[in-house]
Amino acid sequence: MVYNKITSSVISKLKTIVGDKYVFTSADTLENYSHDETEDLRYLPELVIKPRSTSEISEILKLCNAEKIPVTPRGAGTGLSGAALPVYGGIVLAMERFNRILQIDERNLQATVEPGVINEVFQNAVKEKGLFYPPDPASKGSCFLGGNLALSSGGPKAVKYGVTKEYVLNLEVVLPTGEIIWTGANVLKNSTGYNLTQLMVGSEGTLGVITKIIFKLIPLPEKTIVMLVSFPSPEKACESVPAVFRAGITPSGMEFMERDAIDWTIKYVDDISLLIEPHVRAHLLIELDGNDLDVMMRDAEKISAIMTQHECSDILFADTEEQKQNLWKLRRKVGEAVKSNSIYKEEDTVVPRAELPALLTGVKKIGKKYGFKSVCYGHAGDGNLHVNIIKDTMSDDKWNNDLTKGIRELFELCVKLGGTISGEHGIGWVQKNYMDVAFDPKSIELQKAIKNLFDPNAIMNPGKMFV
Amino acid sequence: MVYNKITSSVISKLKTIVGDKYVFTSADTLENYSHDETEDLRYLPELVIKPRSTSEISEILKLCNAEKIPVTPRGAGTGLSGAALPVYGGIVLAMERFNRILQIDERNLQATVEPGVINEVFQNAVKEKGLFYPPDPASKGSCFLGGNLALSSGGPKAVKYGVTKEYVLNLEVVLPTGEIIWTGANVLKNSTGYNLTQLMVGSEGTLGVITKIIFKLIPLPEKTIVMLVSFPSPEKACESVPAVFRAGITPSGMEFMERDAIDWTIKYVDDISLLIEPHVRAHLLIELDGNDLDVMMRDAEKISAIMTQHECSDILFADTEEQKQNLWKLRRKVGEAVKSNSIYKEEDTVVPRAELPALLTGVKKIGKKYGFKSVCYGHAGDGNLHVNIIKDTMSDDKWNNDLTKGIRELFELCVKLGGTISGEHGIGWVQKNYMDVAFDPKSIELQKAIKNLFDPNAIMNPGKMFV
Repeated sequence: MVYNKITSSVISKLKTIVGDKYVFTSADTLENYSHDETEDLRYLPELVIKPRSTSEISEILKLCNAEKIPVTPRGAGTGLSGAALPVYGGIVLAMERFNRILQIDERNLQATVEPGVINEVFQNAVKEKGLFYPPDPASKGSCFLGGNLALSSGGPKAVKYGVTKEYVLNLEVVLPTGEIIWTGANVLKNSTGYNLTQLMVGSEGTLGVITKIIFKLIPLPEKTIVMLVSFPSPEKACESVPAVFRAGITPSGMEFMERDAIDWTIKYVDDISLLIEPHVRAHLLIELDGNDLDVMMRDAEKISAIMTQHECSDILFADTEEQKQNLWKLRRKVGEAVKSNSIYKEEDTVVPRAELPALLTGVKKIGKKYGFKSVCYGHAGDGNLHVNIIKDTMSDDKWNNDLTKGIRELFELCVKLGGTISGEHGIGWVQKNYMDVAFDPKSIELQKAIKNLFDPNAIMNPGKMFV
Repeated sequence: MVYNKITSSVISKLKTIVGDKYVFTSADTLENYSHDETEDLRYLPELVIKPRSTSEISEILKLCNAEKIPVTPRGAGTGLSGAALPVYGGIVLAMERFNRILQIDERNLQATVEPGVINEVFQNAVKEKGLFYPPDPASKGSCFLGGNLALSSGGPKAVKYGVTKEYVLNLEVVLPTGEIIWTGANVLKNSTGYNLTQLMVGSEGTLGVITKIIFKLIPLPEKTIVMLVSFPSPEKACESVPAVFRAGITPSGMEFMERDAIDWTIKYVDDISLLIEPHVRAHLLIELDGNDLDVMMRDAEKISAIMTQHECSDILFADTEEQKQNLWKLRRKVGEAVKSNSIYKEEDTVVPRAELPALLTGVKKIGKKYGFKSVCYGHAGDGNLHVNIIKDTMSDDKWNNDLTKGIRELFELCVKLGGTISGEHGIGWVQKNYMDVAFDPKSIELQKAIKNLFDPNAIMNPGKMFV
């Protein structure tokens, strides 16, 4: 696909659409919008635009579609697959002015929001009304709901409550050709037409721009129990996970961390101290929620028994709200801690949960073969393991060339175990070369044809998901 | 679209693919497969075929695609929107030999099944292992899982546990052009590519034939409480529903029945007696499930208080397992009872749950305007109201012509209230003329283009969903 550069005539048309002060071409703004949280990648846009309304976005897309200018929608820039990077230049469509919670409908347990609302701001707003919006990526304090939708983000609560896609009822979308549609209806059940809503969720901004979201909400559970369980072996920790679910218990959090992950994070966060015995090689962070503490305590006892059967070293119960927050903070900060420690690549592997021990063993074996160290952690209850490959002393040549073979081998293992190559981070720019591991050629052909149907001039977030 | 008739050469090729005895052209077989449970509609196929394997289906579709012969996939024929009717003749692809539960994976809480397995057979099989597959349409004793997927069927448990689409992880599908694909992976979280799985769910057999299903399972709740609440007014019954959810309680069943619905059913089932006071105009059937009876009883008390606030007449708690079964049987048999009573049309309206009273009032008002009586019942917790329009003494002319305007008005009301035209029955043949009420022209154009992408010769279940 050949794209056109942005001309001064296009710039003046864009300024007419959104107003002069929301069109940016200064070097520092372009630099700010050239990266997200993905590794150390940088791609400069030619222009950044910050629209405020659906009709403005419609006008922008009509113009860019006619002029064949790439448009990359961007939430908060917290993505880990490079989905918001303007790899072909063109326009970055920054959604930060779409930041209003339009309605919290307490009668229907629904909310209407704009995509630029920060996840945690929304969570807190519904919490004030005794309601609950569960999806909570590690970046919840900064990430946007629109980005969560684009990638179908998860987070620790997904194990009990499901990921973002499970909470979307209806979407207002501007298509790449400028038309504005609603994908569904504001209902809990819908057997009317093809599921355009779920086609849009997880499409990484390649099929259109989400401008309004109707979310389903649920009653807020009142109480939590948080426990940290240590193990002398990572495999034993992972083996205990399916046993909990098999016992009929669904925790609201079931997180796995290798020793390095927690060690590095304790150093990184500075304000939390936690003494870990030398022989400990892994932890599970487990949360139960509900309204009845007696019932939850009984479940916690059952879990303790299961953990003991799986040779855990120690079980620490958080006694206070502060302790709970600290344990969760440790878990949430692992990603940042790893990032600060070394150049790294993060793979977002996912398998059926009982296959986690096999995946973990495989990761280490592949690491040995290709000469890389890895730090693993993630959402064990979902079988979603974040594999952080550490550059450390690896040569640039090996890092840039050999390693792709190792990553391919890792993904092939995921697929062999019934899994796939991304659980919650998406494909974006950095995983697209591996899509053939997850899908047969015909499935990819269909997906590309769908893309072409929505976006005949390939202006929407080009270069992402597909080779 | 012009289709070709089935020639003797095609018949002999089909016999080569599946074996002589699985190709049927006798008048009585064609008659058996000419109808489902939708009103009194009949469309004769030219031929019925009963394949056993994915590769046989692939061969059949390749042949029909080349010969331009319509293929209508069919589950158990329990559908209520005519989605399994061969309206253009051609082949009915009967899936009844795909009746094996291939695996119940207790480690991962997953199952692999074929689409011709009966819903209740599957439910019971997983129950034996202490596991739970919640979606339970009223026809669960006969309907197939493949049909449940094609329409994204619901049922009473959907209010707590979600509909069929929420339990599908991955699908094996034969495309209309004969290629075999898997749509996803066997994982609880998946941010890899477009959501082909959810595009297939609810597509009513228009995009391909589902040949294998990976379902997610959950732990089986051990106990239930069932209560029947009577009201002097249907609107009051509906008004009490959102109050229960707002109080933080999510029942595992929250069903609404107008007086006529329960009266007709008591007559129809014969073996259940239930004395209903003359002033009672509606009932709610409410179920709670869980593992802790004390907690459930506390919730039941809270619900009782809410019901009393909403002026209920009486609350009956089922004392025995038999009483619970009988109350549920009454609810499940309403559809059949209405069908046996009169010619009728069933509309599967759905709105946000707090809008149910407004919908119900609107139904009666529209009925008065167009001169029809209606019997309403359904899944009140989901805002899903089945409106049975009774022919009774209505003239054929009014029934066939005027009524379509009344139904259109009814659907326009649903959309105005934030809802849509089908919650769980699908569009199929009988609702396709109303799709423009639910979607704007561009959304319908996109859906049709997706159909064309998957099925360029329009052989898969033609005539359904779209005008």
